[in-house]
Amino acid sequence: MSDVYLVGAGMTEFGTFEDKSVKELGGESVYRALQSSGVDKEDVEFASCGNFGSALFGAQGKTVGQLSLKEVGITGIPVVNVENGGATGAQSFQTAWAEIASGRSDVAIALGVEKMSGIETDEMLDVMANAGDRELEGGNGITWPGLFAMIARRRMHDAGTTREQMAQVAVNHHQNATENPYAQRPADITMDDVFNSPIVADPLRLYESCPTTDGAAAVILASESVVEEYTDDPVRVAATTQLSGTYPDDLDIARAETVGEAATRAYDEASMTPDDVDVVEIHDAFSVEEPIYLEELGFCEFGEGDELVENGETQLDGQIPFCPSGGLLARGHPIGATGIAQLVELYWQLRGEADGRQVPDAEVGLSQIVGTFVNIDYGCVIVNILEQA
Amino acid sequence: MSDVYLVGAGMTEFGTFEDKSVKELGGESVYRALQSSGVDKEDVEFASCGNFGSALFGAQGKTVGQLSLKEVGITGIPVVNVENGGATGAQSFQTAWAEIASGRSDVAIALGVEKMSGIETDEMLDVMANAGDRELEGGNGITWPGLFAMIARRRMHDAGTTREQMAQVAVNHHQNATENPYAQRPADITMDDVFNSPIVADPLRLYESCPTTDGAAAVILASESVVEEYTDDPVRVAATTQLSGTYPDDLDIARAETVGEAATRAYDEASMTPDDVDVVEIHDAFSVEEPIYLEELGFCEFGEGDELVENGETQLDGQIPFCPSGGLLARGHPIGATGIAQLVELYWQLRGEADGRQVPDAEVGLSQIVGTFVNIDYGCVIVNILEQA
Repeated sequence: MSDVYLVGAGMTEFGTFEDKSVKELGGESVYRALQSSGVDKEDVEFASCGNFGSALFGAQGKTVGQLSLKEVGITGIPVVNVENGGATGAQSFQTAWAEIASGRSDVAIALGVEKMSGIETDEMLDVMANAGDRELEGGNGITWPGLFAMIARRRMHDAGTTREQMAQVAVNHHQNATENPYAQRPADITMDDVFNSPIVADPLRLYESCPTTDGAAAVILASESVVEEYTDDPVRVAATTQLSGTYPDDLDIARAETVGEAATRAYDEASMTPDDVDVVEIHDAFSVEEPIYLEELGFCEFGEGDELVENGETQLDGQIPFCPSGGLLARGHPIGATGIAQLVELYWQLRGEADGRQVPDAEVGLSQIVGTFVNIDYGCVIVNILEQA
Repeated sequence: MSDVYLVGAGMTEFGTFEDKSVKELGGESVYRALQSSGVDKEDVEFASCGNFGSALFGAQGKTVGQLSLKEVGITGIPVVNVENGGATGAQSFQTAWAEIASGRSDVAIALGVEKMSGIETDEMLDVMANAGDRELEGGNGITWPGLFAMIARRRMHDAGTTREQMAQVAVNHHQNATENPYAQRPADITMDDVFNSPIVADPLRLYESCPTTDGAAAVILASESVVEEYTDDPVRVAATTQLSGTYPDDLDIARAETVGEAATRAYDEASMTPDDVDVVEIHDAFSVEEPIYLEELGFCEFGEGDELVENGETQLDGQIPFCPSGGLLARGHPIGATGIAQLVELYWQLRGEADGRQVPDAEVGLSQIVGTFVNIDYGCVIVNILEQA
């Protein structure tokens, strides 16, 4: 298999864009990724596009890859549309990675796009039920905020996680987003602001829950045989792993063991340990996720993640910065785009291009995302490790 | 890259199944594919699932792969959900193929499933508009039957195609389906029956238009290093190609040049010519497609396809049998499953297991499908060539 490199990255601003269609958003992200690179559109041999459910949100929701690429004049190539719940964008990346790794193509684009704005909350919950089992989960009234609230309560019971520790995650990520011009919800907030924001699903409050977002992101991948034609400063994909859960009867929802297993495999693939990682982007759709993933990604033992957050170790100047971009909480969460946006941020971080939110001397970055909350053990977990080449 | 083999195949009956959920249909197809093979479920390392839009049809429509596999106890592996309009099932196959070809996995399952029944025609047309550009096509009132009716009229003008020649396709495929126990619409019909059936979009009539279908299909793929563990009689994937259209300003809708280009690449990849092919499954969503693809797949020149149909050359005992299964017209067209069902049929044909519809001495089979009718040049064309190993 060929080594795979990132040689370009771009994204739209994340927010609410009533006047932009899905294909316009997707096309814009591809255009920006191409502009950031030395890659000509004629060089692109393959494309993958992640879109979770824009059709369910009332917009163009199929054929999204072809239509987005046609916006910028890329035609006549294989284009694959993929979906994996919240991990949809990361799936798009992994599908393009496989194409390059197999040796079939030398240059590929992975994009992700979602347009979610304009529908009511009850419709949103119904749409999002498709990212779980509609019969066993959604059909019994379980929603995503509700599930993560249950996890938060279990965490508080089993690991002693405090409300303040969870709120600190929200404060950190919104603060980071103030230095990210692409972020939807930059905010210089305090813990009091978090506690004064409306309850979404007790104990989780508004600032602890990701917003509804429109946006798109794209990265350009190249094989080892052509990477030098495009840049002197590429980013290498050291590992990309994916797993579905095993749905054990004795599932412990205060943990996320499928994430732990995927991370273990990723470190093995990269021949690295957690100590090698300088910067991390996670699936922080809800604040409670950060301490859990700190543990599962190997940065500490079970029950120690909360204290790392409290001590500021996941802030920009901490021991292991989490979500310098602002994460899903503050950059926003256009579902199909998020997994790619994480890689865009790591690409910028590893090239030293992240401006006011730059993690000093970042050489290795890790992204983690979960999707499809099937029976509370995740139908799709993806962990990627990138490094300066 | 590893050679890739099919070592198992199975499908549900196609029809209307009000009491079966999407995951039950998907799981049933996987179960049958496993039962047909020597593959144990613990051996499966990767899965791909095609589903076009069951969520849009009011059913579980995301996470379909994970949920279907969980039905039969396959968990803890990477599962990718893919979509490419009418070519969604074929995309699922191609994604699993890439995984095996890359050397990352040795055994993979590709499944496809769709549950379309239970919604009204106007809703169906709205859902299907997602397989084109909602703005430029659906938004201007263009529907799939309407588009193929336009193509039929253009064919009649440019190639001299007659109504009788198109109706003959419907007669052939419904006749073939009478020998296929999985077919939705087996019927021993005459040309008069076709002409007496209701008009769907002039000149196309009911028997010339594929029905609305529930169903699922699955194939099991193995690498060259493990294939002998599972069967003495595998089927080799000689070629699998995909292209999106180039959307030229002077597009000729009496032809399908993107299909021609994909076929040329497939023959090159397989080191074969059309003369080598013994049996064909095409995207016969509408009768008019058969003469077009006869030409584009290289079995004759432009304008000669109609006469081949008229002379019976695409019937079971003809020179190049098309759609022994009954095709989309008579086996049915559960969108995400169809591309896999084509391969299931070819698997049976090449192993001599197709009973009353067996093509004698079939050694090489070709499947062709189109999806995502973007600006009438197809956003996705997939051509596969399979052969006895």
